[in-house]
Amino acid sequence: MKTRTLWRGASIAAMTPDRPWGWIEDGALLTDGDRIEWIGRADDLPAGLDVHIEHRLSGGVITPGLIDAHTHLVYGGHRAREFELRLQGASYEDIARAGGGIRSTVTATRGATEVELLRDATRRARCLIAEGVTTIEIKSGYGLSFADEARCLRVARRIGEQLPLTVRTTALAAHAVPPEFEGRADDYIDAVCGWLPGWHAQGLVDAVDGFCESIAFSPAQIERVFNAARALGLPVKLHAEQLTDSGGALLAARHGALSADHLEHLGSDGVQAMAQAGTVAMLLPGAYYFLRDTHLPPVQALRDAGVPMAVATDHNPGSSPTLSPLLMLNMACTLFRLTPEEALAGMTRHAAQALGLSQTHGQLTPGRRADFALWHIDHPNELAYRFGHNPCAQVVWGGRPGKEQPE
Amino acid sequence: MKTRTLWRGASIAAMTPDRPWGWIEDGALLTDGDRIEWIGRADDLPAGLDVHIEHRLSGGVITPGLIDAHTHLVYGGHRAREFELRLQGASYEDIARAGGGIRSTVTATRGATEVELLRDATRRARCLIAEGVTTIEIKSGYGLSFADEARCLRVARRIGEQLPLTVRTTALAAHAVPPEFEGRADDYIDAVCGWLPGWHAQGLVDAVDGFCESIAFSPAQIERVFNAARALGLPVKLHAEQLTDSGGALLAARHGALSADHLEHLGSDGVQAMAQAGTVAMLLPGAYYFLRDTHLPPVQALRDAGVPMAVATDHNPGSSPTLSPLLMLNMACTLFRLTPEEALAGMTRHAAQALGLSQTHGQLTPGRRADFALWHIDHPNELAYRFGHNPCAQVVWGGRPGKEQPE
Ligand SMILES: [Zn+2]
Ligand SMILES: [Zn+2]
Repeated sequence: MKTRTLWRGASIAAMTPDRPWGWIEDGALLTDGDRIEWIGRADDLPAGLDVHIEHRLSGGVITPGLIDAHTHLVYGGHRAREFELRLQGASYEDIARAGGGIRSTVTATRGATEVELLRDATRRARCLIAEGVTTIEIKSGYGLSFADEARCLRVARRIGEQLPLTVRTTALAAHAVPPEFEGRADDYIDAVCGWLPGWHAQGLVDAVDGFCESIAFSPAQIERVFNAARALGLPVKLHAEQLTDSGGALLAARHGALSADHLEHLGSDGVQAMAQAGTVAMLLPGAYYFLRDTHLPPVQALRDAGVPMAVATDHNPGSSPTLSPLLMLNMACTLFRLTPEEALAGMTRHAAQALGLSQTHGQLTPGRRADFALWHIDHPNELAYRFGHNPCAQVVWGGRPGKEQPE
Repeated sequence: MKTRTLWRGASIAAMTPDRPWGWIEDGALLTDGDRIEWIGRADDLPAGLDVHIEHRLSGGVITPGLIDAHTHLVYGGHRAREFELRLQGASYEDIARAGGGIRSTVTATRGATEVELLRDATRRARCLIAEGVTTIEIKSGYGLSFADEARCLRVARRIGEQLPLTVRTTALAAHAVPPEFEGRADDYIDAVCGWLPGWHAQGLVDAVDGFCESIAFSPAQIERVFNAARALGLPVKLHAEQLTDSGGALLAARHGALSADHLEHLGSDGVQAMAQAGTVAMLLPGAYYFLRDTHLPPVQALRDAGVPMAVATDHNPGSSPTLSPLLMLNMACTLFRLTPEEALAGMTRHAAQALGLSQTHGQLTPGRRADFALWHIDHPNELAYRFGHNPCAQVVWGGRPGKEQPE
């Protein structure tokens, strides 16, 4: 028998698109098992409800659980020494000589045991959970061989089993050319296309991603990966237009991608193509900040074209070593000029859409999953206003609360 | 009888200036009451020590407790709505009409009870503590009357009594012209000079600060406040050169100020004057970030001139609503190009100097206060590398540990 639980005493930002914040003053939320059964104003609660557990909250705001829809959470080592060397004035050659760059993370990832990878990624996931996260996407991309990518995807799956999070896995083998394919990018792409069915058969892949950039793979190379993915019925997404306008967003839109990500150099043709394809714009202000980028993504053009904008941490050791989704809300506003409501929609409703979960996640409505967070705030605009501050009071995954956290 | 406690099993970044990070591989630290008695390599521990308590740590790094040497921690209300309005395109007039700006914080502060001010400021201080902070400076500046400034300074003192923190108070009545002195800035400065002896007699003031800027007070007005402060034997410091080069740093140096703060528009004459006066450059990257400033403080010139650089949160509701000293370490590196070691020195050794506490705080040496933090990291450069992440494992204030925090 499923448990019916009532939550009342807080206001609710349901993040439905019908009104600002989907706001419900003095709300109530009834869960039935892992689903929401009823949500609305406490005054409107139906009479005679058969409730097993009732939580009477003393204020605060409930929002959908945050969704971090772009992370590279599984890897070995870190790049703190590289960060330090760069600030001491080291050149890229110096850093390469000291073993830095993405290759160093590939080496450390391959050298780590699956137990170590799981332990470290689990710690990172717990940091996200502490800030109200209930769903995350996890990309591979630091293994770059059949076995090493599979290992990272398995670790991602395990995190979804061991923690209350919903985890969506993404195969990002087309992230960089591994050393054993040095100078043979096309051969590597062939290999990746050949590996995909095997990972898929093991149930490891929910989506397929690539890095389309002058320093990574061309649109033509990415397209071969996309074709292989779609032949397996897998949705695609793409790291696109981060450093240059390479045509990645057009390619992504043509393949009906769930999202195109980064987009600092996205042009107007890309915006229009994404709008028509229903591809979400995944904005990653952490990488923009950490790389000291100065070229802003075309937020106003995306807004005008009605392209849904998502926001994520892009957690990775090289360009966005952050584990704070709340800080990303502030950076999306401060750096990219999203409104606080757009930023929160970017980590709830639009993030769910970017993961193909818009029917079940990212909004608080009857029938959707009872994933939500309670915050020690009076208004949801406070989540984006403060930075380096976590007012999360409690997280509920599929109707089940985590233990209350100290204020 | 004082308790002698031994800590071993971690490496130590003692932040002494004699070698990088004051690094001690596999260190040991012996406290006697609230002081450090011995510190060095565990292998070199003297034999036959009479130790009452021994903590055997399993790795990690010990650093001096962080010192947040520039905060405006005591105020009523917040400015989340103003933040939202600005992002929705509101003009300054719109915001003023909606009751925004510093005046709104003055109104909210005057309208709050002392109990409310203490409760809110204590919550904020606990956030700092959670990131390894052992000493903070707290400025008044949102009361702007004799009684309201005194109330805020009393709250600051109480925080130092109720929490294990060392608190240094700063009277910042010369922050803005209050409404009842509208258009009469000189009269307000007269009043402030007349109020100082009363606050001082009540033991509320450790230092005196001002806001020297085209939109605030002129150097001539600030100098009158400085003269009043120095007549009482109180050290001074100054918000200077944040928006324009107004000559504030020269004034501060001429008065032997502990620090000049912000400094984005500091010129070379100011740098030289600060170097000669021994005035610390207090860098505040949180406000630079939040205000989307693009004019960098002259870090290389400060470095070349040997001016000690400190780093702080500048926590305040209008221009730096952050409670993360660790994020400030990252921003000091990412935005201002400090090295990770310079950033940490800025929140330890140089922050202590900025508070007039260099003999007792900010470094781990025999005789200094046993204020330190243990971090779940392998190297202190990791503190600046990650952002939006808190690896603090334990904090020790005056030899007394707070309860262990979950990893
Ligand atoms: Zn990425
Ligand atoms: Zn300030």
